[in-house]
Amino acid sequence: MTAFAVADKKKDDKQPGGAGLRGQSAGTTALCTVGKSGTGLTYRGYDITDLAHHAEFEEVAHLLLKGKLPNRNELNDYKQRLIARRGLPAALCRVLEEIPASAHPMDVMRTGCSVLGNLDQERDFSEQESKADTLLALLPAIICYWYRYSHDGVRIDTCCPEQDSIGGYFLEMLTGQAPSDLHKRVMHCSLVLYAEHEFNASTFTARVCASTLSDLHSCITAAIGSLRGPLHGGANEAAMAMIERWQTPDEAEAGIMSMLANKEKIMGFGHAIYRESDPRNALIKAWSKQLAAEVGDTHLYAVSERVEQVMKREKNLFCNADFFHASAYHFMGIPTKLFTPIFVMSRVTGWAAHVFEQRANNRIIRPSADYIGPEPQAWLPIEERD
Amino acid sequence: MTAFAVADKKKDDKQPGGAGLRGQSAGTTALCTVGKSGTGLTYRGYDITDLAHHAEFEEVAHLLLKGKLPNRNELNDYKQRLIARRGLPAALCRVLEEIPASAHPMDVMRTGCSVLGNLDQERDFSEQESKADTLLALLPAIICYWYRYSHDGVRIDTCCPEQDSIGGYFLEMLTGQAPSDLHKRVMHCSLVLYAEHEFNASTFTARVCASTLSDLHSCITAAIGSLRGPLHGGANEAAMAMIERWQTPDEAEAGIMSMLANKEKIMGFGHAIYRESDPRNALIKAWSKQLAAEVGDTHLYAVSERVEQVMKREKNLFCNADFFHASAYHFMGIPTKLFTPIFVMSRVTGWAAHVFEQRANNRIIRPSADYIGPEPQAWLPIEERD
Repeated sequence: MTAFAVADKKKDDKQPGGAGLRGQSAGTTALCTVGKSGTGLTYRGYDITDLAHHAEFEEVAHLLLKGKLPNRNELNDYKQRLIARRGLPAALCRVLEEIPASAHPMDVMRTGCSVLGNLDQERDFSEQESKADTLLALLPAIICYWYRYSHDGVRIDTCCPEQDSIGGYFLEMLTGQAPSDLHKRVMHCSLVLYAEHEFNASTFTARVCASTLSDLHSCITAAIGSLRGPLHGGANEAAMAMIERWQTPDEAEAGIMSMLANKEKIMGFGHAIYRESDPRNALIKAWSKQLAAEVGDTHLYAVSERVEQVMKREKNLFCNADFFHASAYHFMGIPTKLFTPIFVMSRVTGWAAHVFEQRANNRIIRPSADYIGPEPQAWLPIEERD
Repeated sequence: MTAFAVADKKKDDKQPGGAGLRGQSAGTTALCTVGKSGTGLTYRGYDITDLAHHAEFEEVAHLLLKGKLPNRNELNDYKQRLIARRGLPAALCRVLEEIPASAHPMDVMRTGCSVLGNLDQERDFSEQESKADTLLALLPAIICYWYRYSHDGVRIDTCCPEQDSIGGYFLEMLTGQAPSDLHKRVMHCSLVLYAEHEFNASTFTARVCASTLSDLHSCITAAIGSLRGPLHGGANEAAMAMIERWQTPDEAEAGIMSMLANKEKIMGFGHAIYRESDPRNALIKAWSKQLAAEVGDTHLYAVSERVEQVMKREKNLFCNADFFHASAYHFMGIPTKLFTPIFVMSRVTGWAAHVFEQRANNRIIRPSADYIGPEPQAWLPIEERD
């Protein structure tokens, strides 16, 4: 039996190449449960519904990164520390000015994070919480600085101490105006909902990177790269592109029925792990409804609801977290191409918490592969090759 | 039984958190076998010893990226195409000038790759081979441009068509002088040896990222971040830092014995997968010996050999690919901090080939986690928290 005999055997089997480690444990976590009873989502034991109803995003960031929900003083201190870290380094601003308006916004986020690793290097793991806080404080500025410079020719001030929340900070840098209380509350909810989701692909990317004992910026940069993929982040952008094509619920219903007939992929529905519903949907949907009323929306919310009904009726599929995020962000005036970068501003908390956890109980993540390639090849000098 | 009962059970077990998927298959590959009989390494069925003795690095890049060893015309064409892609975009040069000399060279590589994703975006997978070739052509320039600018204040010309090999191109940009034939041959061997190694952590990072259908630059950027970790890349740098402390073989022996007594980690020895030897060691060791003779080395090669003997005698550990790379690179005048970036210039071929392979038979890589966190927590309003 040659060393390659296993290869032939594997070729005959159902190839596991696309199996994606589904259902295989790749480690332990104390951060999150997803779908334990088919629906639930908890961060360190706290139910997502409680967190979304009652917590500011900074409370959840504290829960994930520091291990506990803060009391009032701790929360105030934490928010002040995050505000104090605002303001992009001048060198990072100059780099962002080199990136054209046609760039993919997630490439900008990935690059901004990577550049920051050069300017503010994590030299020792004792600095990990501090570096994570700086990233949390600066990621909204990275995308807004690039966006406003490349699209509007404006060099914005990224210090902006007037806003005491990350969501408010993002909205003010983006629009140049102080956001309403309603918008700030929606941003808290949205950022809370996206903060953490166990061993999803981007988080797992961060953990594989962390397992080599690489620095935090490498891990987060890698995770942003994975979230960029259309099978992971970006579903809310795709949902927006779809719903804005329709002017009435009836048009939407006809459109969906036609897409289903053509077996087109409809983004924002179903989930790899949740079976019955995504617990995040009802939470963001309620805000979308309220925003629709505020802006005097004539059809987009109604279109979204009809799409939800038709998908349930036709395919028994439920909205995931992304679907009503599309209309909610749109009502707040956020350009569609910035939806996934908002996901980054939030999920950086989960990613960093997973990096800390991986480091605390590490073994390098190095799986095996099943070989399905050629048998051993005899060497053929170049002049004898076809 | 609550949804969290499994957590308590797991706490009592040996925690799998550090298991690192060791021995678990995470997919299939036709690119590489590692250690099938305890020692071997093949790229698409070709033995590493044949490749290292007979092939230019560009032949191996062609084998990995295009699926076959090129004939003479194909090799010449491929080398000409790579040469034609040289020359960093001006915007990338300006970004590299913003990175201080104190930065980690792997942060520079990661950032250069990420920036290139903004300037030369892969908009469709049909572009994947072209984008990989451009990265292969430009990665040596990224590190050399930054290094020479930040350390010497020199803006180098990164076109450099005089050199027809990637290794020669790197050496000429680094030193400003045309490298000798010997040095170019050593670089071919070195780049061939580092090109591919199955599902190691950086390659697996690239595949996880690719599994979200993200773009090539995101995958390679993520992989660079993983290779940066001291448990993965960097062993040759650590070996260099160790051996250059000793002036004679006897000093080295005493030093190693002392380090072993103190249970210090000695880099460049043993391997997670190889059992008896690393087939790459003999290949680079032979070149190190020849380089030692060329430069009139009085002790570094002898020190390296003694370290090898002592580690075999005391711990039955063999040199891996990294150990004699340290002295070989040093003899060619390469600064120690640039050793791991050379690894990137080579491994980008394996990473990209794995990305192509993942895309061709994809399922998103999304493992499960064993929950070991808190039981469900009742919500506590912020004013009631400790």
